[in-house]
Amino acid sequence: MPAAFANAALIAVDWGTTRCRAMLLDMDGAILAEADSADGIGALGGVGHEEAFNTLVAAWPKVPAIMAGMVGSRQGWHEAAYVSVPTSPDRLADGLLKFQTADHRPMAIVPGLVLRSEARDGDVIRGEETQLVGLMEEEPDFNGIAILPGTHSKWAAIENGTITTFQTFLTGEVFELLARKSLLRHSVAEDSDDIAGSADFALAVRRSVLEGLPFLAAIFSVRVRQLLDGVSGDDNLAYLSGLVIGGEIAAARQVGLLDSDRPIRIIGSRTLARSYHAAFGVAGHAAETRDGGALVRRGLVRIARANGLI
Amino acid sequence: MPAAFANAALIAVDWGTTRCRAMLLDMDGAILAEADSADGIGALGGVGHEEAFNTLVAAWPKVPAIMAGMVGSRQGWHEAAYVSVPTSPDRLADGLLKFQTADHRPMAIVPGLVLRSEARDGDVIRGEETQLVGLMEEEPDFNGIAILPGTHSKWAAIENGTITTFQTFLTGEVFELLARKSLLRHSVAEDSDDIAGSADFALAVRRSVLEGLPFLAAIFSVRVRQLLDGVSGDDNLAYLSGLVIGGEIAAARQVGLLDSDRPIRIIGSRTLARSYHAAFGVAGHAAETRDGGALVRRGLVRIARANGLI
Repeated sequence: MPAAFANAALIAVDWGTTRCRAMLLDMDGAILAEADSADGIGALGGVGHEEAFNTLVAAWPKVPAIMAGMVGSRQGWHEAAYVSVPTSPDRLADGLLKFQTADHRPMAIVPGLVLRSEARDGDVIRGEETQLVGLMEEEPDFNGIAILPGTHSKWAAIENGTITTFQTFLTGEVFELLARKSLLRHSVAEDSDDIAGSADFALAVRRSVLEGLPFLAAIFSVRVRQLLDGVSGDDNLAYLSGLVIGGEIAAARQVGLLDSDRPIRIIGSRTLARSYHAAFGVAGHAAETRDGGALVRRGLVRIARANGLI
Repeated sequence: MPAAFANAALIAVDWGTTRCRAMLLDMDGAILAEADSADGIGALGGVGHEEAFNTLVAAWPKVPAIMAGMVGSRQGWHEAAYVSVPTSPDRLADGLLKFQTADHRPMAIVPGLVLRSEARDGDVIRGEETQLVGLMEEEPDFNGIAILPGTHSKWAAIENGTITTFQTFLTGEVFELLARKSLLRHSVAEDSDDIAGSADFALAVRRSVLEGLPFLAAIFSVRVRQLLDGVSGDDNLAYLSGLVIGGEIAAARQVGLLDSDRPIRIIGSRTLARSYHAAFGVAGHAAETRDGGALVRRGLVRIARANGLI
């Protein structure tokens, strides 16, 4: 075992539907080693979590582990009950689901968040709450909106150290379905190098956010642009992406999640985060981007510390 | 050949993507015989239209034929150039594409409609224009909105004998993709007996049209309702249908297609037309339903007559 492992204090795990990512950390949250596998919660199908975990971290010291993501869902290792918003990192830490493995390793799962709302049936988050805690750790005075783009895009409002509300948009999934499975698939390219920098992306965002073109009234135009104007598949893919992301921003504004004063943080992977950044630029909002992986680690360390795991 | 065929004057054909439906008509447009086949424009793949037509009508007298639908598209028998809106039935008749079969039968294809718009790239219709003409023939003084629900739902405004504008919504396709291919498929039933009469359908329409819940902000709640509240698949299918149809009505209102004064006609098949009728009721609009098949025939006869085919 490497000498550096003598300082090992915690294993932090981001265990989602498709991947399991583990980091061996020291007392300060610095990374000593990393490992990941394709044993996502979806692939495991509800069984074998302990074996998958033990295999992944077999080479590391037996320190406590904290986990976030779908590992806490009904299909996960153990179901961790949702914590209601508004809530704080400390209250999330109080809600940790703790247990031990067969070989007596202390384990903890971060609970997801639930929102109850008369107006729209409520909402749930599982995994993203930990990145929100990481952001609040990185910027303790942040008051604004955090956006986690993806298959299911999440928006959360943070005020004075509290996550006050959040909202899920099926943006990524709607984009994939329209681009790959609908009639529009004949009018868009498979992929495009620079959606964020495309004039057609900007045009679609402008129409959606600034001119109020409703999403459902806008999407057939992807077909029309190709049919009547010979717009290329590349440009049309960017246009469709702009309609979907612009539609999300317009919808967020309509439900009161976005106003001109609140600072915006985009948490996520490079390509998609770039598109959102460009869209906010067109919409007239300044936004800053944060690396999602780094925030997961910060969030897990913060929650582990609050709960006395390290 | 039956004696009644002595009065045959015209063959009217509704030739869409999936089916080819032919009617043998007399001078007054009354039906003498009907035939249909699965030789839709999609199945034929761009070839064999004349053979398919001749086979379908082989038992009938060799009278002129008029056709509407995808038969006039690029993949159809012959491409009939779009006519721009605003337009009238007579101008559509002027735009008929006429040709002869190899055995010298006079043939005509009704052109589709095109809308040019700076604000949203324009729009196209092919097939539905004939039902609109049928409606204008049935109600010569109609001033209002005609809605043709379906995979691609079409709205058209009719004023003083003129089709002034129209708009396509991918409503049916979006519903199918969300209900069958998205994460939401786990939260909705395969099918439901009475979507139009469901309280959950009405709730979703109310939220979408009256409370302004944006479509993209609303759809994840289908999952949440199942997860947190145990809503049944039947009720959730009705709720999702209400979000999609309500979203279409809300979008139509936003783009100025719907106001409180204009009468509404729903042209279409029974089940879907019933859902739209119920949705308009919730939204506070009176609407009447018309049978689509009857209007195709009236429209084809009207255009054939204006062009001197009969």
